[in-house]
Amino acid sequence: MSTPNGEVHPVATGPAAETVAKHQDPQDLVFYCAWYCPWSTRTWVALEEKGIPYQYREANTFHEDEGLNRIDPKASVPAIQYKGRALRDSLVICEFFEDAYPGTTPLLPADPFERAYARLWMDYVTKSVIPAFQRLTLSQEPDKQHAMLDELIKAMRTFTEKIKGPWFLGEQFSLVDIFIVPWVLRDHVIAQYRGYSRAAVGPGWEEYTERLVNRESVVKTQSLEEYNAEINHRYLRNEPQSVVTRAARTDRSSA
Amino acid sequence: MSTPNGEVHPVATGPAAETVAKHQDPQDLVFYCAWYCPWSTRTWVALEEKGIPYQYREANTFHEDEGLNRIDPKASVPAIQYKGRALRDSLVICEFFEDAYPGTTPLLPADPFERAYARLWMDYVTKSVIPAFQRLTLSQEPDKQHAMLDELIKAMRTFTEKIKGPWFLGEQFSLVDIFIVPWVLRDHVIAQYRGYSRAAVGPGWEEYTERLVNRESVVKTQSLEEYNAEINHRYLRNEPQSVVTRAARTDRSSA
Repeated sequence: MSTPNGEVHPVATGPAAETVAKHQDPQDLVFYCAWYCPWSTRTWVALEEKGIPYQYREANTFHEDEGLNRIDPKASVPAIQYKGRALRDSLVICEFFEDAYPGTTPLLPADPFERAYARLWMDYVTKSVIPAFQRLTLSQEPDKQHAMLDELIKAMRTFTEKIKGPWFLGEQFSLVDIFIVPWVLRDHVIAQYRGYSRAAVGPGWEEYTERLVNRESVVKTQSLEEYNAEINHRYLRNEPQSVVTRAARTDRSSA
Repeated sequence: MSTPNGEVHPVATGPAAETVAKHQDPQDLVFYCAWYCPWSTRTWVALEEKGIPYQYREANTFHEDEGLNRIDPKASVPAIQYKGRALRDSLVICEFFEDAYPGTTPLLPADPFERAYARLWMDYVTKSVIPAFQRLTLSQEPDKQHAMLDELIKAMRTFTEKIKGPWFLGEQFSLVDIFIVPWVLRDHVIAQYRGYSRAAVGPGWEEYTERLVNRESVVKTQSLEEYNAEINHRYLRNEPQSVVTRAARTDRSSA
């Protein structure tokens, strides 16, 4: 869906590369991931948390991937192939893991109301936090960036006020935490170029985000920061080229 | 959240009014609905399909509703109060019904993959069909309406190609059907004012939509068409005033 571009590193590096190496054997579940893609990270962290056997397939959308094009004409990541049938969308896939692998660590509460409450806040992250984060990152007009920063801080503060600790829902690490972590991992970019700081969000946010980025499943799915620089700068110049980011620019906030 | 406006009828009429009358007794589940709201219809049809006991509460967002304001500061519909705790968002609420009332008629497949497939198409309706429908309805520029109509027809055709019949997933009437039906119920507006026709979508669509609008749960939650006229014309002039439609105009396509 996008032209190959030599500037973006083709494969995962660092801890993520080690994790990729451990997941090369054929499995019922093939995971199509782009190493730098935040929506892919959601799915990847869920797989690691649940200990589901999977085969990793790099489907960097800045490059070509015939396998991904074959299972999904939109070539969007994350995608999975399960016993030969394809699914995409991080929310749909993560819910599928909960349904299809009942013996694994649950990432949603068992109680129906608590489960609905979790879904409400996953939706909040997707519809309120991420679009605000993206608008701020992509904004090229300094005089508008201040208002956009305020909007993001406000959205994060509303979320923060509901953190029970240590994780969003309390003792259970859940899809709510997984849904927000990819943007926490990238907040150094808006800290450096858009005036953001974790401290500005308010009490609890710094401690929570620190716990999040140090979670084992999160650490082992991350590539070396230096390889993200080119992609981050494309965003900051508002010139990303992947399918995922084209969707983001048209305000389709979930993938 | 919006100023009271005498032009919009305050309560349900026709078959919907009869259904409302049967659901006045206090129950564990209080359903906050706006009789004309398409997202409320999703939840209402699901309740009727599943036979869940509920207390109907009209929360017409063109008027004031203290009860709704109390449970949800955003005063968005649909909303529910379950044993004193509030939830909103048609998707979150419908999934909650599946989890909380396991003995009732299922509206999602039992098989995990088929369930994920259903969620993918519910998401498609919400992210592709409805925004195209809304853009076409709200558009004030005749020279752009043709392209918008093409976009909607194309989105509906993609959906239609996957209808197994008689319902989207086959024999099981599901949340996929429920998620699209409110816009099928309103398509006479774009047929009259924007050049749409069901026939233009392609084989299968006319038969499917005819079955949908005649489904008992759908019929009994509908008000008399004459009371929709004022609201439909606000949309056609791009001057709706409810919370729901403000959200729609900013491309937040789900509520």
